[in-house]
Amino acid sequence: MKNYAVDGPILALSGGVGGAKLALGLSHSLPPERLYVLANTADDFEHLGLQVSPDLDTLMYTLAGISNPETGWGLKGETWNCMQALEGLGGEAWFRLGDRDLATHIYRTASRARGATLTDVTVNLCARLGVTVRILPMSDDPVRTMVTTDQGELSFQHYFVREQCAPKVRAIRFEGHETGKPGAQILSLLKNPDLAGILICPSNPFLSIDPILSVSGLADAIRESVAPVIAVSPLIGGKAVKGPTAKIMKELNIALTASAIADHYGDLLDGIILDQDDAHAAPELEARGLFVGITDTLMQTPKDKTRVADYSLGCLQALRAGGNG
Amino acid sequence: MKNYAVDGPILALSGGVGGAKLALGLSHSLPPERLYVLANTADDFEHLGLQVSPDLDTLMYTLAGISNPETGWGLKGETWNCMQALEGLGGEAWFRLGDRDLATHIYRTASRARGATLTDVTVNLCARLGVTVRILPMSDDPVRTMVTTDQGELSFQHYFVREQCAPKVRAIRFEGHETGKPGAQILSLLKNPDLAGILICPSNPFLSIDPILSVSGLADAIRESVAPVIAVSPLIGGKAVKGPTAKIMKELNIALTASAIADHYGDLLDGIILDQDDAHAAPELEARGLFVGITDTLMQTPKDKTRVADYSLGCLQALRAGGNG
Repeated sequence: MKNYAVDGPILALSGGVGGAKLALGLSHSLPPERLYVLANTADDFEHLGLQVSPDLDTLMYTLAGISNPETGWGLKGETWNCMQALEGLGGEAWFRLGDRDLATHIYRTASRARGATLTDVTVNLCARLGVTVRILPMSDDPVRTMVTTDQGELSFQHYFVREQCAPKVRAIRFEGHETGKPGAQILSLLKNPDLAGILICPSNPFLSIDPILSVSGLADAIRESVAPVIAVSPLIGGKAVKGPTAKIMKELNIALTASAIADHYGDLLDGIILDQDDAHAAPELEARGLFVGITDTLMQTPKDKTRVADYSLGCLQALRAGGNG
Repeated sequence: MKNYAVDGPILALSGGVGGAKLALGLSHSLPPERLYVLANTADDFEHLGLQVSPDLDTLMYTLAGISNPETGWGLKGETWNCMQALEGLGGEAWFRLGDRDLATHIYRTASRARGATLTDVTVNLCARLGVTVRILPMSDDPVRTMVTTDQGELSFQHYFVREQCAPKVRAIRFEGHETGKPGAQILSLLKNPDLAGILICPSNPFLSIDPILSVSGLADAIRESVAPVIAVSPLIGGKAVKGPTAKIMKELNIALTASAIADHYGDLLDGIILDQDDAHAAPELEARGLFVGITDTLMQTPKDKTRVADYSLGCLQALRAGGNG
């Protein structure tokens, strides 16, 4: 039996909106020094000369308590005067950047131009926004999601925002993943003998978690970690809460089931947390040797988020105690 | 006697705020196809990754009727949410960029990145803003004003905006002026046998007009043009209306007189228009063979601007008829 690290750090793998909900819940239950959020940066892109990191920003804004509660992304009380003027000038306006949000991209772009890494910039932005949880970009190198569709290959934001996920997905690849190295601190954190748990947030497995796992050496380091790995299923009653998860799974001929999610993550997982509406999948998953947690995973209110976080932390702690790292 | 081109084009040399007032007056009196404004671009700089062209923008916004009437630069009804957020992030906020104004710089930067020249971008911006007067950047190449001061050499915006013109000026130079070529259309316009007149707006001679004249071949092309050249003196009663003109003239040991302005432009001029409070300088200037116009040159109201424009056009027309090109 491995060492029982009740006070060790927790690493959460997250994309944007969906993952940020659980990250926020975790931040309510853990002291900031125990929580690390490993963020997808494969949606990052240069737009209008600015370096935009949508998932990092959603996580920062959410954890800073300044995100737009209606959309889950962007800032609350945002204004859109620059975009409106840009549209008037005939500029590209399909990707909406709010006036205050623009400051983040301008700051990031200027800092990067002066040689700061994405990790450095994120540390500085978090400090200024009062985010004490450590948000770790999956890589400081460009790893980019490319979506092969019935309309040809599209970069992620062209697929996701400009085309509103309308094209049919045939395949997804992560450009640069073989050469992109894991961001600073990530590998040492994964090697930390006190690491208490790794939680895969209920983000889109194909578009938000897979890019993280694609970064060279990162999935292996997770497998080799002493910490148990649990995924929170993004499905509720065989449906996706939000976003294109269900549509993409259908297009990739993957069944909309918790078992399919578990299959997808494969031997990375020690356990999976299902929504109560998917409890019927538990026996089959347990038969494979997986720990299966069952709870109400819908996160709407702050209370929901803290509850799912607490439940997940409980599962990780129990697995860690049981030596399932 | 040269050909009398009563309907030929007029070329106005202009910096920002002061020159834009006269350019606006000219635009009220001339059909748009007769007016060209040759703009200083030596104040241009890259800031926060964005390409900012302060004088071009002031001219565009003024001629579009959307400039801030209080400052003379920027947009009316502007908001400052991005700058405020950027300041919160610890970003550089000494150069204030309004939310709507930012769209202009984003558009310009993105267009330039795709290979458009500054002239191309200005044509497009003017078309979108409804400016029918042709605004011609003095050069598509980088020519940059550098100010030698008692605190060392400063780039123009560092001197002008960041340091608020506080350092004492020792010398001014225009980096890149030997290699920078005049912008498209300028030389052909200056060779146009129908060119009806060249007006040097009452902009700062040292910081706004000199950079234009420094562009390789441009001053000679003005001298060789058939059109008469008249400067509107920026002084009123031996004082500058606004800005650092008087301070700089003192620091460069230049007398604050209309004669000194005429000396400065030298053999480029066929005439000079003085404010009525400087009329005493007329006999001496006329004795040099210069045409001297005298009027109330203070431009506060739209009526003032049109009046000074009409007076200047009258002077140019009379000189052109008299063959003083």
